[in-house]
Amino acid sequence: MKDLAGLMVPDFDDVLAAHARIAPHIHRTPVLTSEFLNRTTGAELFFKCENFQKAGAFKARGASNAVFGLSDAEAARGVATHSSGNHALSLSYAAGRRGIPCHVVMPHSAPAAKKDAVRGYGGVITECAPSTSAREETFARVQAETGAEFVHPYNDPRVIAGQATCSRELMEQVDGLDAVIAPIGGGGMISGCCLTLSSIAPQVEIYAAEPEQADDAARSFRAGHIIADDAPDTVADGLKVPLKDLTWHFVRAHATDILTASEAEIIDAMKLTWARMKIVIEPSCAVPLAVILKNPDVFRGKRVGVIITGGNVDLDRLPWMKG
Amino acid sequence: MKDLAGLMVPDFDDVLAAHARIAPHIHRTPVLTSEFLNRTTGAELFFKCENFQKAGAFKARGASNAVFGLSDAEAARGVATHSSGNHALSLSYAAGRRGIPCHVVMPHSAPAAKKDAVRGYGGVITECAPSTSAREETFARVQAETGAEFVHPYNDPRVIAGQATCSRELMEQVDGLDAVIAPIGGGGMISGCCLTLSSIAPQVEIYAAEPEQADDAARSFRAGHIIADDAPDTVADGLKVPLKDLTWHFVRAHATDILTASEAEIIDAMKLTWARMKIVIEPSCAVPLAVILKNPDVFRGKRVGVIITGGNVDLDRLPWMKG
Repeated sequence: MKDLAGLMVPDFDDVLAAHARIAPHIHRTPVLTSEFLNRTTGAELFFKCENFQKAGAFKARGASNAVFGLSDAEAARGVATHSSGNHALSLSYAAGRRGIPCHVVMPHSAPAAKKDAVRGYGGVITECAPSTSAREETFARVQAETGAEFVHPYNDPRVIAGQATCSRELMEQVDGLDAVIAPIGGGGMISGCCLTLSSIAPQVEIYAAEPEQADDAARSFRAGHIIADDAPDTVADGLKVPLKDLTWHFVRAHATDILTASEAEIIDAMKLTWARMKIVIEPSCAVPLAVILKNPDVFRGKRVGVIITGGNVDLDRLPWMKG
Repeated sequence: MKDLAGLMVPDFDDVLAAHARIAPHIHRTPVLTSEFLNRTTGAELFFKCENFQKAGAFKARGASNAVFGLSDAEAARGVATHSSGNHALSLSYAAGRRGIPCHVVMPHSAPAAKKDAVRGYGGVITECAPSTSAREETFARVQAETGAEFVHPYNDPRVIAGQATCSRELMEQVDGLDAVIAPIGGGGMISGCCLTLSSIAPQVEIYAAEPEQADDAARSFRAGHIIADDAPDTVADGLKVPLKDLTWHFVRAHATDILTASEAEIIDAMKLTWARMKIVIEPSCAVPLAVILKNPDVFRGKRVGVIITGGNVDLDRLPWMKG
């Protein structure tokens, strides 16, 4: 860990420590291939299946690293976050494994299924009004009352070191990769890829894939500073959040490029993955394949690792179904 | 291969020969586990994922064994079958790998998606009216014109020896299984399990799982002779066909029991598998899990291999979606 003018930046030793710490609590997920998709794209694609990860997403890595890195005294007060997505599930999962409380602040308007899922992993939900100010107030109150440790979904060195274990496994599982591609929202997974690959395989290109309708990271990358959008709308609901200082640190330094795909391209790629690979993936995870299909010249002839980030999807509301 | 009063019955040497013959053309599919489903059922479940198999189903094993076992002279005339399901896809796939024609007789009323899928693997479709007599007439004509070798979807010793390679792999992949369970329609997969397990692991119980609404195999098993129903209706559309003499030979001798599940139980088990295991499976493959959930006393405390037979499903018409 390095202190860069107040920004605590994890290094590869932190990744190795994270990997040893979380190994009992996560799956070493398999890498799948598809002859059909290789033929279709002209690339050799290696899909790292974090949809099979504990709690259904790669976020179990970072959350487990944060939770199991706490001292016993810190852990006794529990952890807390505000999220209605995979981070809330994963933090609840990891806290449950350690036997400590996990406090999750969620708007009361969040879908019942998401609340049930968090509770299913043992998380304790505090509901708030669906506004940023209400969420911040409620979260501050919960934290003050409990003394719980805040674990940010991505802008946290412990979380990024945890996510970085995914690309470390991928490099052990597949020889001779030319590139890795992952979706980008807040940038936790991509930062993990940047951290690992810049340390152990700096020749490997790192592509981030983003929805056109939430392309703040791509615009940030071109502008040279963080651009944050207010509430973008995309089917890839895991990718709506903006970069923050720590993820921006990694992305600006190590990403090769950030490429975008339209909503229709994302949905087509998602359905194609379900149909041909027989795996359940979230819309967010389909953005990399959509980008590869859209930019054949960038990827043709390359061996490309594709991070399938998660599989938590509402089976009653699939994006290709009408109504 | 033994000749039992005219019935050609494959033995375990045929399975070993089949496995060597088809190895270059099939996947050694992975075995997945789910802590959640283990906790829910009280059993230890090992899912053999033939939904990841070539052409999307275990039937690639039997079809490949039939196709690659032909002499060059036989192969030159091609292969033929009548099926609108996974066997047609798999036989087209295997014939394509050998570079020989595959003739498939299908009713003109079959869904366009199924015809497209067969053609996508190189199969040549001859359409007929949607009746048994029309199908038989058309098939006889195609066979007479082409001299193609008929490969039955299941009542064929080459096909059963091929399917038997699946449980052989499973026994190599998982130690100490107490039982194996697979869906039963015509009985090809279950016969393969009977053949392999009675030869190399006779202590392992063999359960067949069948829809209540197409329970002809269960009734046959109790009656002691084949009972065939005319056009049963079930969401598990791969399981509508009846036992035939060769599959009955194996099932009557080696199956431990045949258990059934209702349509609602099958659909619930299918959705549960998608939601928790993040894999796309056909309704037919959900029947074993439905049966396990319904009969906890039979399976509790056992290590159970569960054959996930295939993943070819119409993503636009999922059985839990209304309308």
